[in-house]
Amino acid sequence: MPVTRPEFRNAMARLGAAVNVVTTDGPAGRAGVTASAVCSVTDDPPTLLICLNRGNRSTGSFLANGVFCVNTLAADQRSLSEVFAGLTDCEPAARFERGEWLTLLTGAPVLKDSVVSFDCRVTEVLEKGTHSVLFAGIEAIRLTPECGPALMYYARGYHPVGSAAA
Amino acid sequence: MPVTRPEFRNAMARLGAAVNVVTTDGPAGRAGVTASAVCSVTDDPPTLLICLNRGNRSTGSFLANGVFCVNTLAADQRSLSEVFAGLTDCEPAARFERGEWLTLLTGAPVLKDSVVSFDCRVTEVLEKGTHSVLFAGIEAIRLTPECGPALMYYARGYHPVGSAAA
Repeated sequence: MPVTRPEFRNAMARLGAAVNVVTTDGPAGRAGVTASAVCSVTDDPPTLLICLNRGNRSTGSFLANGVFCVNTLAADQRSLSEVFAGLTDCEPAARFERGEWLTLLTGAPVLKDSVVSFDCRVTEVLEKGTHSVLFAGIEAIRLTPECGPALMYYARGYHPVGSAAA
Repeated sequence: MPVTRPEFRNAMARLGAAVNVVTTDGPAGRAGVTASAVCSVTDDPPTLLICLNRGNRSTGSFLANGVFCVNTLAADQRSLSEVFAGLTDCEPAARFERGEWLTLLTGAPVLKDSVVSFDCRVTEVLEKGTHSVLFAGIEAIRLTPECGPALMYYARGYHPVGSAAA
């Protein structure tokens, strides 16, 4: 018996993860989505990957721009997570009015108060079922001076995690 | 200026993640490693990926066996994380004496008291710098009846996260 979609989702709810707002900007326009499917790949060359649902209309902008920034949220940024997940009545065009944004090298929006931001350029895209897997080289990094608690998602709930220096 | 290896590692320390013991068994033998680079890919067909360092001598067994199980650790399983990360004096052959293990479909060791286990068969491998990225179809899932706190890693420390039912 194959694993069903509800079984998959119930199981993945138990694989805890950091909450990120992943952004892009460029010829195809600015966009941002909340994503937990972000993964370190290798430090040589510095590379990470993100998985984006092709059913999300922002995904085309990520693919066309070829750049993105992974902004890992702090524990007090739950409302940003909900805005970029489309769970509020905030229009997509107004999402970036929440939070303070800057840019590094690629032009993708960098969240000023993230616990860490990875400014990336896409190097390879794989299509896997419903999702696009974007491998990307990390061109710049922004770390806030203090490493406060991060926002994590586990068992269908948000949790603040950690406060140690790093 | 490219991102240096220390910068990459300092930044990735702020991308919190679940702690998993990933196991394999088959013609190339039984092996297991602690890994946080595990990522949901798509529910159609049910797929996840893991990134394994080719410098780890277990990685060849994963690639040769073509099957693995991702066992997501509960908050009280920190000692298993350390054993499978090679941070104790426990020999690789003795690692599986810690914990209770069973099997599902692929034969890879399934940790009885994980918060969730994903029994997987490799469908595609990508080589990326120092790491192999293994895409795999999820053939079976094991969920403990209760969803207790999970073990997460953030800012170079372990943290228990959550207790809500899921």
